[in-house]
Amino acid sequence: MGRIVKLGAGAEFDLIRRFTAADDALPPEVMVGPGDDAAVLQGGWVISTDMAVEDVHFRRSWISDEEIGWRAGAAAISDLAAMGAMPVAVLLSVAAPRGGSVDLAAVNAGVRAVALAHGAPVVGGDVSHSPGPLVLDVVVVGRTLWPVQRDGAEPGDDVWVTGTLGASAAAVRSWEAGGEPNAELRRSFAAPRPRVDEARALVERELVDAMIDISDGLAGDAGHLAAASGVAITLEEDRIPVAAAAVEALGPEGAFDAALHGGDDYELCFVTDPGVIDSAYFAARFGVQVTRVGYVSEGSGVWLQGPDGSRTRLERGGFDHWEGVASPEPGAS
Amino acid sequence: MGRIVKLGAGAEFDLIRRFTAADDALPPEVMVGPGDDAAVLQGGWVISTDMAVEDVHFRRSWISDEEIGWRAGAAAISDLAAMGAMPVAVLLSVAAPRGGSVDLAAVNAGVRAVALAHGAPVVGGDVSHSPGPLVLDVVVVGRTLWPVQRDGAEPGDDVWVTGTLGASAAAVRSWEAGGEPNAELRRSFAAPRPRVDEARALVERELVDAMIDISDGLAGDAGHLAAASGVAITLEEDRIPVAAAAVEALGPEGAFDAALHGGDDYELCFVTDPGVIDSAYFAARFGVQVTRVGYVSEGSGVWLQGPDGSRTRLERGGFDHWEGVASPEPGAS
Repeated sequence: MGRIVKLGAGAEFDLIRRFTAADDALPPEVMVGPGDDAAVLQGGWVISTDMAVEDVHFRRSWISDEEIGWRAGAAAISDLAAMGAMPVAVLLSVAAPRGGSVDLAAVNAGVRAVALAHGAPVVGGDVSHSPGPLVLDVVVVGRTLWPVQRDGAEPGDDVWVTGTLGASAAAVRSWEAGGEPNAELRRSFAAPRPRVDEARALVERELVDAMIDISDGLAGDAGHLAAASGVAITLEEDRIPVAAAAVEALGPEGAFDAALHGGDDYELCFVTDPGVIDSAYFAARFGVQVTRVGYVSEGSGVWLQGPDGSRTRLERGGFDHWEGVASPEPGAS
Repeated sequence: MGRIVKLGAGAEFDLIRRFTAADDALPPEVMVGPGDDAAVLQGGWVISTDMAVEDVHFRRSWISDEEIGWRAGAAAISDLAAMGAMPVAVLLSVAAPRGGSVDLAAVNAGVRAVALAHGAPVVGGDVSHSPGPLVLDVVVVGRTLWPVQRDGAEPGDDVWVTGTLGASAAAVRSWEAGGEPNAELRRSFAAPRPRVDEARALVERELVDAMIDISDGLAGDAGHLAAASGVAITLEEDRIPVAAAAVEALGPEGAFDAALHGGDDYELCFVTDPGVIDSAYFAARFGVQVTRVGYVSEGSGVWLQGPDGSRTRLERGGFDHWEGVASPEPGAS
């Protein structure tokens, strides 16, 4: 089965690392610099920015202008969730095509709705016309006294995910094939719900060693955790919670690929000491399934373990949409 | 003389105000919300975001990729200066055209250079390819215990500007006419220097009642101060410090128009009690001219006072590049 069309973030990670020179001295006000889901400033302020580009991350024929705003806002807020932070404020920059075809009030209403649903007003931003596609950049500011980074996974830890995976990528696949996804798939793409409350519940109980949100697909994002922590992560094939609607749309093999490599699920992948998570608690309090999907061991990379116990190393997941974009030489920055 | 071509921010202000619903309740962590140069969070954190769009704010045939980065970073940092804040950290989002024609390492190097020159490392960001033009969104985080807002101007106050005005707009005019600006004009556009140190010196001496950076032209930005403070501002025609190089390029009338209505000077316009500014101090310490350009009185709007003492109300300055972009109904948001 072919690769799911991946409009999402993809191989941006390395480029961002090169963008943000890790060797620049950080002033005392900066507690966590480049390389995590968000930067952390003195006092527990967490800040991140997330871009959504028409015809790269979404198409305007797929979802409404308000949904475009919600989705971009949710993706940005998801980075705060990944740090265990509470959203405080949002800023919205928009480059809008000339000609009036985009309803900026609706885009703004979507961002504002998802921000306010998580307690954060929109406190600023910028707006420009553009000769090109609609581009949104959503800046999120949050706060936490215990920022969860990517680098705390230790051999012996369990690896978990919230929710189910693959529905959003299945929706994209339906649209790209000229069809229309069913309501459930469509909602996964158009109206994702960032896992802020679930993340806070984990952090407040001091249960999490490392965490990331799944924007690039489970394989790729688990890979970021493994790389940052200097460990190997093994995903157990028959434990991965593939969305039933994705299976219905793509068949089991396609849905599994979507769950592993498709983006835009905005669920959390988190790492804990073994045996500390009570999944019934999450089901009861948040109505959300949490699933242990694998384990941490010494080594490196992300591995897929079949039902027979055999392990295969996964290549970097995700469609590299950076082909053809000039990128700095490794280490240049 | 025709209107200076204005690629700058223009009439974005009203749209941002509508974007950011001033009637949303602000949580206790947000001290200053929508409507100023930047938002202010508890603890004196100041945050702003500024977008630069190819063929709207700049053309790639005019300046290098590194200059594009510097200029976008400087414009964003200028908003911190306008609040009297010290830069702490910068985040950079980039949407880059496919095909490799943009050197992202150079763009990043430009942003990083201007950020580090003001003490702020680049701590994060996002990057995507795009089917459209190069778009940068620069997020700046700063800090100050005394944020200077726009609403403190009082009748009887003096109105001042740093530096000279009109050179950046004159450079744009040269390029748009098919020529090449001289080195001084070019530098004004390509490598503006945000007035962070000058603003800090003003704030530390508690000299400033209100301040804004001049990104939309003196007339427009003085208009923002007047509107926020509920006063009238009168600019004295023969006191406005028109850049000599702009006069050389455009003649006195064209240069005056560029100074009044052209954008992208990134100087400061500030309001003080009468007689408190020692311009010799600024010349000696910063090598920067500061000029009293007018005064505050009761009323509203921005007025131009001729050498004979007659006053003319200025229409809103700036070229409205929002024509054709759907905008929300006033008050909608």
